[in-house]
Amino acid sequence: MAERIAILTGGKAGEPVAAKTAVALIRYRRDEVVAVVDPGFVGRDLAALMPVLNAPPVVASVEEATTLGATAVYLGVATAGGKLPPELKPAVLDAAARGLRIVSGMHDRLGADADVAAAASRSQAELVDLRAEALAERTVATGGPIGGAFRVLTIGNDCSVGKMVTAWELTRGLIEAGIDAAFAATGQTGMMLSGGGVPIDAVVGDFLNGAAEALVRRHAHHQVTVVEGQASLLHPSYSAVTWGLLAGSQPHGLILCCEPGRPHLHGRPSLAVPDPVRLAAVVRASAGEQSGCELLGVAINGRRGRDDPDRLRAERERLERELGVPACDVVAEGPGALVEVVRAAADARAADRPAADAP
Amino acid sequence: MAERIAILTGGKAGEPVAAKTAVALIRYRRDEVVAVVDPGFVGRDLAALMPVLNAPPVVASVEEATTLGATAVYLGVATAGGKLPPELKPAVLDAAARGLRIVSGMHDRLGADADVAAAASRSQAELVDLRAEALAERTVATGGPIGGAFRVLTIGNDCSVGKMVTAWELTRGLIEAGIDAAFAATGQTGMMLSGGGVPIDAVVGDFLNGAAEALVRRHAHHQVTVVEGQASLLHPSYSAVTWGLLAGSQPHGLILCCEPGRPHLHGRPSLAVPDPVRLAAVVRASAGEQSGCELLGVAINGRRGRDDPDRLRAERERLERELGVPACDVVAEGPGALVEVVRAAADARAADRPAADAP
Repeated sequence: MAERIAILTGGKAGEPVAAKTAVALIRYRRDEVVAVVDPGFVGRDLAALMPVLNAPPVVASVEEATTLGATAVYLGVATAGGKLPPELKPAVLDAAARGLRIVSGMHDRLGADADVAAAASRSQAELVDLRAEALAERTVATGGPIGGAFRVLTIGNDCSVGKMVTAWELTRGLIEAGIDAAFAATGQTGMMLSGGGVPIDAVVGDFLNGAAEALVRRHAHHQVTVVEGQASLLHPSYSAVTWGLLAGSQPHGLILCCEPGRPHLHGRPSLAVPDPVRLAAVVRASAGEQSGCELLGVAINGRRGRDDPDRLRAERERLERELGVPACDVVAEGPGALVEVVRAAADARAADRPAADAP
Repeated sequence: MAERIAILTGGKAGEPVAAKTAVALIRYRRDEVVAVVDPGFVGRDLAALMPVLNAPPVVASVEEATTLGATAVYLGVATAGGKLPPELKPAVLDAAARGLRIVSGMHDRLGADADVAAAASRSQAELVDLRAEALAERTVATGGPIGGAFRVLTIGNDCSVGKMVTAWELTRGLIEAGIDAAFAATGQTGMMLSGGGVPIDAVVGDFLNGAAEALVRRHAHHQVTVVEGQASLLHPSYSAVTWGLLAGSQPHGLILCCEPGRPHLHGRPSLAVPDPVRLAAVVRASAGEQSGCELLGVAINGRRGRDDPDRLRAERERLERELGVPACDVVAEGPGALVEVVRAAADARAADRPAADAP
């Protein structure tokens, strides 16, 4: 699916959490990204604003991006409630008028905007709404045995703490270690990276567990499936999605993602971020009680902690001690420590399992 | 919303669990029900087939129901995945051709069937899809304080164990005891009874917690809100809905519903029904850990137990002992015992609460 991508960030190029989709595309599909379109950041070095190396140029318009070869625009920001941000509309409209492919992960449909729909209709621009297909998802989970791949799910004590990045880096690390591992995307950014998956937070409630179960069944022929986690079981807004994914994907192992130093829950200034140890206890007593899934490791997002490395190290050691599993910062150090625990757990399960149950 | 209702049961009039919507309409909107349409059951006494008193007549066709005055047909069965059962189509089509109001709680839209849509268009029949509006639900839960009413949620260790009936009977009992209580419907049957509510299992994942929070905010001006529970936290298929409702409605108290003697999970012959004591522990360690909600009572569905009353009594005593709360069978005995514990808990909270927090 190689293409020539311009990423729209609509004024958020300097906010790596809001522009997390842009960050992921630049990190993991860099060869295909020709530019970021964000007029307020023209001439700035994105690598100084976002946790990326080798940043693409910033241009002022979709027109300029096309002179660099862009054939597609990707909406590079995540918004509360998945609304199409008004500040992105001019660029989206311009791209539609020029017949570019437009890829969006918003709950709002691109074509729901009459101007965009009309422009795309005239130019034959392809409008790709990654979350739209989720409404057609009508699988009811069986809860029955899945077999095949060892399943790992990333969980987090908040939104935007690194569940997608950890799952992606872990998958890459497992593959580099010679293991047949697959990344199972459950969100729009993961889908933009992998070209597959299901936007689980856009699935209707009754079919949420089923969408997760169907997703892992489709990956059962691999040795290891790494499922991208969503939100947090203790986030007030989106925890139904987290629970459905935990129940439906029937993970064998969990990687807990957290960002030490975060001042409050994402988008909820009055709510504290739960201690990862508390989250682990809640998950163990609920989803763990059901499926027997085990915590295998902790993924530390060191973004905020790098200013105070002693404190970050102390928190990491506390989590390793209290949770009894290794921790690592997959961006700073690579996923090696997590690759090892996942490989060991997958091997242990394969050894335990009767041959008849083999994939 | 008084109307003249014919209930369609499509061959399921003898199956009270499948026809649970019919049972609820006959129990709680009996004055408006003129007939049940189910050709295979003409002349049978429904009271011998379903747990209802004063059953309406069974007729063979929608045409006959109209001779009894029917102006509306209600789909009286619940199906896995909310699919429109093919055996109901002839009657639905007939009703559409006759211009009757048709009320459905299926995930499948009535108008998605081209024949039904065409017939309704010709006759101007009103097609009411209770679950359809849920897709427009786009509230993101805040997790912030709600205030006002004391909130009670019914939970269950399986689907179809009596969460709706318990919530309805409890609300009625509270009102009879002079308390300003309101029933907050979360499913199609509850909506058919109350004329309001939200079909929470049809809401998109990201907005599930939000739909529950918005529902209880709309009822905050009452003294007590009784929220109809959905599915079970330990049911493999639909537990995302249960979790979203538990988190979003921020209940103060829970009533645990169960049906002793049930051989396996609803629709899942290979899966055992979880012990209610186990469910209570999981809920306490997860949703309870978050919100501090407390188990107030147990609602025993005695349907299967009445053949062996000693065993039913022993199970009831065990649950009371192990859970430390009173149990009652709201259908056999009325909701008195639950009314008392809810009233006491609501009073205790009102006494604790600073005046500034009063509604």
